[in-house]
Amino acid sequence: MTSLTLGEIAVRLGCELRGDPDAVVSRVAPLGAAGPGGLAFLASPQYRPELRATRATAVVLAPADVELCPVAALIARNPHAVFARAAALLHPEPAPAPGIHASASVDVSAHIDPTAMVAAGAVIGARVRLGAQAQVGPGCVIAADAVIGAGSRLVARVCIGPGVRIGSGTIVHPGAVIGADGFGYAREGAAWVKVPQVGSVEIGADVEIGANTTIDRGAIDDTVIEDGVKLDNQIQVGHNVRIGTHTAIAACTGISGSTRIGRRCMIGGAVGIAGHLEIADDVVITAGTSVTHSISQPGMYSGAMPGEPSSTWRRMVGRFKRLDSYVARIRALERAQGLAAADDKGRNSGDD
Amino acid sequence: MTSLTLGEIAVRLGCELRGDPDAVVSRVAPLGAAGPGGLAFLASPQYRPELRATRATAVVLAPADVELCPVAALIARNPHAVFARAAALLHPEPAPAPGIHASASVDVSAHIDPTAMVAAGAVIGARVRLGAQAQVGPGCVIAADAVIGAGSRLVARVCIGPGVRIGSGTIVHPGAVIGADGFGYAREGAAWVKVPQVGSVEIGADVEIGANTTIDRGAIDDTVIEDGVKLDNQIQVGHNVRIGTHTAIAACTGISGSTRIGRRCMIGGAVGIAGHLEIADDVVITAGTSVTHSISQPGMYSGAMPGEPSSTWRRMVGRFKRLDSYVARIRALERAQGLAAADDKGRNSGDD
Amino acid sequence: MTSLTLGEIAVRLGCELRGDPDAVVSRVAPLGAAGPGGLAFLASPQYRPELRATRATAVVLAPADVELCPVAALIARNPHAVFARAAALLHPEPAPAPGIHASASVDVSAHIDPTAMVAAGAVIGARVRLGAQAQVGPGCVIAADAVIGAGSRLVARVCIGPGVRIGSGTIVHPGAVIGADGFGYAREGAAWVKVPQVGSVEIGADVEIGANTTIDRGAIDDTVIEDGVKLDNQIQVGHNVRIGTHTAIAACTGISGSTRIGRRCMIGGAVGIAGHLEIADDVVITAGTSVTHSISQPGMYSGAMPGEPSSTWRRMVGRFKRLDSYVARIRALERAQGLAAADDKGRNSGDD
Repeated sequence: MTSLTLGEIAVRLGCELRGDPDAVVSRVAPLGAAGPGGLAFLASPQYRPELRATRATAVVLAPADVELCPVAALIARNPHAVFARAAALLHPEPAPAPGIHASASVDVSAHIDPTAMVAAGAVIGARVRLGAQAQVGPGCVIAADAVIGAGSRLVARVCIGPGVRIGSGTIVHPGAVIGADGFGYAREGAAWVKVPQVGSVEIGADVEIGANTTIDRGAIDDTVIEDGVKLDNQIQVGHNVRIGTHTAIAACTGISGSTRIGRRCMIGGAVGIAGHLEIADDVVITAGTSVTHSISQPGMYSGAMPGEPSSTWRRMVGRFKRLDSYVARIRALERAQGLAAADDKGRNSGDD
Repeated sequence: MTSLTLGEIAVRLGCELRGDPDAVVSRVAPLGAAGPGGLAFLASPQYRPELRATRATAVVLAPADVELCPVAALIARNPHAVFARAAALLHPEPAPAPGIHASASVDVSAHIDPTAMVAAGAVIGARVRLGAQAQVGPGCVIAADAVIGAGSRLVARVCIGPGVRIGSGTIVHPGAVIGADGFGYAREGAAWVKVPQVGSVEIGADVEIGANTTIDRGAIDDTVIEDGVKLDNQIQVGHNVRIGTHTAIAACTGISGSTRIGRRCMIGGAVGIAGHLEIADDVVITAGTSVTHSISQPGMYSGAMPGEPSSTWRRMVGRFKRLDSYVARIRALERAQGLAAADDKGRNSGDD
Repeated sequence: MTSLTLGEIAVRLGCELRGDPDAVVSRVAPLGAAGPGGLAFLASPQYRPELRATRATAVVLAPADVELCPVAALIARNPHAVFARAAALLHPEPAPAPGIHASASVDVSAHIDPTAMVAAGAVIGARVRLGAQAQVGPGCVIAADAVIGAGSRLVARVCIGPGVRIGSGTIVHPGAVIGADGFGYAREGAAWVKVPQVGSVEIGADVEIGANTTIDRGAIDDTVIEDGVKLDNQIQVGHNVRIGTHTAIAACTGISGSTRIGRRCMIGGAVGIAGHLEIADDVVITAGTSVTHSISQPGMYSGAMPGEPSSTWRRMVGRFKRLDSYVARIRALERAQGLAAADDKGRNSGDD
């Protein structure tokens, strides 16, 4: 934790201050629970009652809300982004000491920038290159020929496969595995012949990869994660997938091999995307959706069936399974009514 | 394995014995496959035929089943719980030798209880505190300021983030990651600004956390797992979630940020729970359900559509997609029949 | 990478060559992007236009396509399998030097074959046995009494629990956890009593297990993965599951406890299979299906509802939830039409 005056924050983040520039904040805090020294923000108009009652030292908010604020206000057109940056100023990541821990195992042919950090128990293979200020946390394993860009951070116990290239400023959380073999086999009789996965993985700059997420190496070409992509925990990315810049994907989503996802997409949790699809730029997919076809138009897509009390759900499933019989009954009624001929919309093609 | 007489077991577990108190058992075994020295139990009345034929040395069962038992019987009102305790007596976990393995890296400012165990390759950060008899297995990484309570056990390769606090008697299985950053960003144009995740995680006592499960640190406040919670493998718990005491959750379930789950809930596998919801106490959610709204009443909730032969399923999906047209046909029939006016339940509001 | 003449490849893989046996290839490449020295293959007739234009040095293809091939052809009845084997010849895995890395921790009672490899930071427990040419990669943890068969490879950071037995030629990718406790508790009042999981895991030969996949140890008997099974990433296998030989399962699938899956099954990604089921041999289950009942017949099964534009989906869900009312309206029409008696198929039993 660091203490800053409101004046310093306003100057550094380029926002307008209404209030005492010498007042000091030392931590971020929720609007409703903040006390002296706390910096809060107004996330949405629904929290205006909490704004009126806040005891924070200052609040980051939009111009429209400034009149409601009983304490100092940092006024920004994008309060969330300004709050994020203020939080980073107040809660800086501890700067690790550069150097290689005595318990790490580093191949003699690896090139470790003198400003990089290699923590206890890390294992670094032949010809690996670590850029300036790169951080390899405890227990990470980096296989031969991988490249970790400047300022990138493998938090702990990350596994990087052979030849994987990671850009600058990227964060990889514990347990993530980047560059394991893709799932490729040729069937031969009853058995499977492994198809060697000779591609690798290319990760851009300013990417973040969540805990226990897995990104497989390509079969022949590389799997590619472009700049600015944000992946949550326990995501599975199959071989030869490409994810476009600034796309964000929530936890537990799986993307099958060779699918290409566009730029600036937002994909919810537990989404399943089949292989060999193309998803356009600016597509939003809500949580729990199964995507089985390519999506060529921007927009929002859904497919999760919301849960119900179990007895209701069982009844609904029973209805669903008997849809055939209901349609047959509609058709019988139409015939009895003499409607079928008058209202025929291809129903007699057998596809009604 | 340990050998015990039935008399010892009956006394230690407070249950009634029918049979020779000096008979010896040395292992648990399935009712149908047990042989001499085996201790079995009757899980449900459907296994009574196996009870009648069992060759176990003794069986744990309910009073109602004792007459059917051809061998010695340990009689309990809760046979499953008594069997669980008997199994723990017969198959005690090996007691690790206290002390710090030579290959572990322990920060000088950490406080390790003299009765605690730190295994090979573990890495323990600044100011970490390990309680009495706490066990840190091989390859675990514990970041600065974390606290591991007395008797808790991190089995192997567990990753504990900065400031995480774990109560006593808790077990964490390999690959679990507790306290990685939550998935929080502010959008700014096409890009994402990381919101520092300055909360941590608080885990209670007698909790069990499965292999490769991930529990994210809070954005500002902490993520909280209360006493006695049981989490299976590959569960994802988002930032600022709270899970109430004695709730049990099966594998592959994901819980989005800021959702609060009540006490004594039972949640099946592969459930997806959206963010910012409230789930009441004593709620049961069956496997595969998508939960998109808060649940305020105890009871059982479901939402998984059971699979079918693919040709049947494709037909059902086709029917589902044409529901609009079927409803239009029902309406046309009602008009032709003159029923619409007589049986109007708001259907003409456009929401029929 | 290795260079081979087409003649060598044809002889070693037993396929017919049309073209210069002295031409040299040194890498596999996609049909459309290959250049000189590249070996491609024709995966399906849809890529024939790319075949006609290829600049690969040679293409593996079926007899029916040989006339379309502008370059040398390796002719095989199963081009995919021959290509897989050729790729393994051209891109051999680096052969690790046998021996135990100085930073590994190996219990004195372990038996490590002199031709086996134990990499940096690995931890090997009491009485573990490693077969000839077995490879234990960096950061792996192998608990007491486990057995790793000849030529098997734990890539990195794999966790093997007590007593787990792995056959020969099996590959386990990073982050996999084999033999953690199954999820077993007895309820006692509001709380849970842990049921010790005293079984272990038996893995056959030629199995492949993906990154961050978890396979739990059995409650009493063992969990069993038979020979030739292929498991993708982030799969969860519950205690006492059995998976039959040559079955392949895609990523993110979960299998609940005590379910038995037959031989030669193909199971898609993100499938959920309930506990205590029996799945027959030769069953195909497509991605995203919930399997809630046993499957006794070979064939293909499905259950995922494909996503739609969100507005369409919301309307479909609304229709689905009102199915009861539509059926009531059909019944009312039938009564008005006098059809109910004439066309009664048990609908008046209350289950219409």
